[in-house]
Amino acid sequence: MIAILTDFGVSGPYIGQMRAVIHEQAPGINVVDLFSDLPACHVRASAYLLPAYTQFLPAATVCLCVVDPGVGTERKALALQIDGRWFVGPDNGLFSVLARQAQQVNAFEIGWRPDYLSNSFHGRDLFAPVAASLANGDTGGLESIRPEELVFPDWPDELAEVVYVDHFGNLVTGIRAESVPKTAVLEIQGQHCSYSRTFAEAKPDSLFWYENSNGLVEIALNKGSAAANSDIRIGTAIGIQLS
Amino acid sequence: MIAILTDFGVSGPYIGQMRAVIHEQAPGINVVDLFSDLPACHVRASAYLLPAYTQFLPAATVCLCVVDPGVGTERKALALQIDGRWFVGPDNGLFSVLARQAQQVNAFEIGWRPDYLSNSFHGRDLFAPVAASLANGDTGGLESIRPEELVFPDWPDELAEVVYVDHFGNLVTGIRAESVPKTAVLEIQGQHCSYSRTFAEAKPDSLFWYENSNGLVEIALNKGSAAANSDIRIGTAIGIQLS
Amino acid sequence: MIAILTDFGVSGPYIGQMRAVIHEQAPGINVVDLFSDLPACHVRASAYLLPAYTQFLPAATVCLCVVDPGVGTERKALALQIDGRWFVGPDNGLFSVLARQAQQVNAFEIGWRPDYLSNSFHGRDLFAPVAASLANGDTGGLESIRPEELVFPDWPDELAEVVYVDHFGNLVTGIRAESVPKTAVLEIQGQHCSYSRTFAEAKPDSLFWYENSNGLVEIALNKGSAAANSDIRIGTAIGIQLS
Repeated sequence: MIAILTDFGVSGPYIGQMRAVIHEQAPGINVVDLFSDLPACHVRASAYLLPAYTQFLPAATVCLCVVDPGVGTERKALALQIDGRWFVGPDNGLFSVLARQAQQVNAFEIGWRPDYLSNSFHGRDLFAPVAASLANGDTGGLESIRPEELVFPDWPDELAEVVYVDHFGNLVTGIRAESVPKTAVLEIQGQHCSYSRTFAEAKPDSLFWYENSNGLVEIALNKGSAAANSDIRIGTAIGIQLS
Repeated sequence: MIAILTDFGVSGPYIGQMRAVIHEQAPGINVVDLFSDLPACHVRASAYLLPAYTQFLPAATVCLCVVDPGVGTERKALALQIDGRWFVGPDNGLFSVLARQAQQVNAFEIGWRPDYLSNSFHGRDLFAPVAASLANGDTGGLESIRPEELVFPDWPDELAEVVYVDHFGNLVTGIRAESVPKTAVLEIQGQHCSYSRTFAEAKPDSLFWYENSNGLVEIALNKGSAAANSDIRIGTAIGIQLS
Repeated sequence: MIAILTDFGVSGPYIGQMRAVIHEQAPGINVVDLFSDLPACHVRASAYLLPAYTQFLPAATVCLCVVDPGVGTERKALALQIDGRWFVGPDNGLFSVLARQAQQVNAFEIGWRPDYLSNSFHGRDLFAPVAASLANGDTGGLESIRPEELVFPDWPDELAEVVYVDHFGNLVTGIRAESVPKTAVLEIQGQHCSYSRTFAEAKPDSLFWYENSNGLVEIALNKGSAAANSDIRIGTAIGIQLS
């Protein structure tokens, strides 16, 4: 299976063009658009989403991950084998949180280049063909490098910020729920949020936090949108009050 | 074939995570994202969309249907065999209009539970695996119940309300066109709409109604959006004047 | 492979209903949603996008293309064999730019009609079954016509207008980059744009133009949206100053 995670958006031709390449080169492989609206050009926020939203994928899944504001400039193209799955994408820190949380990382630089490589769409021209090859079991064109050679920005273990706002207006944070006691009170833009196990059990009309189905702390409003009527956005800070 | 109908939205990781589960457990089965933006948390509006938009699916299609604001609380998980197709989802009235219009209903409660069941995403953890099993021809873990045991809210046969606003700004209603004479005049927020067979035949600059391709009454504006410049939304009432 | 290009939008049931038809009639064929948000009802803008965004598809791909504001009225239904690929859709000019740029065009009118043909959704009822048949290698029901019989509007070779605004706010134009020297300065709503090879090399805070990955001139803003804070839309004119 190939899972595609990008900031290309659900609209437009970009995901489809990558899929066309994959279907041509690996016709029998299932392809899933796992996350098409990672925060646009926000490598850091996306880096915290990757481990959470890929953890349940079957072993041997190839994750094609592209948040790549530096496309066309000098930066390595990577294929990483992390805890049994493959991750393909740019070396800009996107995989750094994933690698840090992992038990085993084998790192490779992609040496292969296609006949035509555009300046702005390596997702289609470079990363999709490599993902298709890996799904076909072909690891040619990869050059082993040491994991320490990867770009590792100085980012915290838990990112106390909004990293994604979903369709319902729920606020996903970069904090793993296992690192916060259920008694903690979170604070966002002056509003305080207590823990609730489910939406239905939350107090009406006030924000609460819960452990989302991927293990991240998420702030929500029962029967409403936590993101509406505020200027909460990607990067908005979260306070954590341990009682 | 498995058809997915949810209110999860076209963005975000939710549909993709369900697809990953299905592809893993039923790799050769075709999967269609049939309706990803059913009205969010609007079980009633969605209930009127289900029969219209699933009627043309092949026999034996498995419809994975999730509009589930009560996820994580006590409510049955259902697998219904309705006129030859399977429907999997929560027992909150979502299938009640479909069942009422059907000729044959076999009802089952899903007794099986997965090793990991999140509080907020039964679509991925519970309903998707069951849909995959049914598509594979496996009906294990289902317990027959009487159709009368299902949640049947007191909703009308035809819902004279907007139940969906589409990409073009067309207003889908919960009224089956076969129940309204073509001479009827509809009224929405003070505007009157006469019947037109096609968009091109409608009077310019005024709303009209027509029978949409799924048999529902739909209100539209030729070369424009019926939803723009108004506060029409899910639930806005429609008046019907029989002349 | 079948590639779907429409103005139906990424939301709603339309793409899914077409896919259900295709999967039923051509179960082993890969299907790609290549472009789901072609400019709504803008046949002309869409006509310039088609050749650019289908050029990299494998030979023998069937492109199911529907931008069809005249659906339900008299207009031919077409199946065109253009440079080895099939294109299926309405005869309203949508394929005219593609045909003009092509080396070989074989034109057919679709004589076949389904048992049920709605007035508003020929994409599902007529064009999708024909695309599935063509993907299966079945060319029955097609009647050869001369290419000169197709609708050929009086549109220019290069369309100096915005034809698409993407997820990042980049402005795709109907101008092929090969027809403009890199020294040219483009003008849009009073703002001037010089050429840059990549986003990263562009001057900060000012619009630039580049050759996008499909060979079209595109206007963008590095680390920002060229479409934000302006009333740029489909059809906004582009000036070209050759120095």
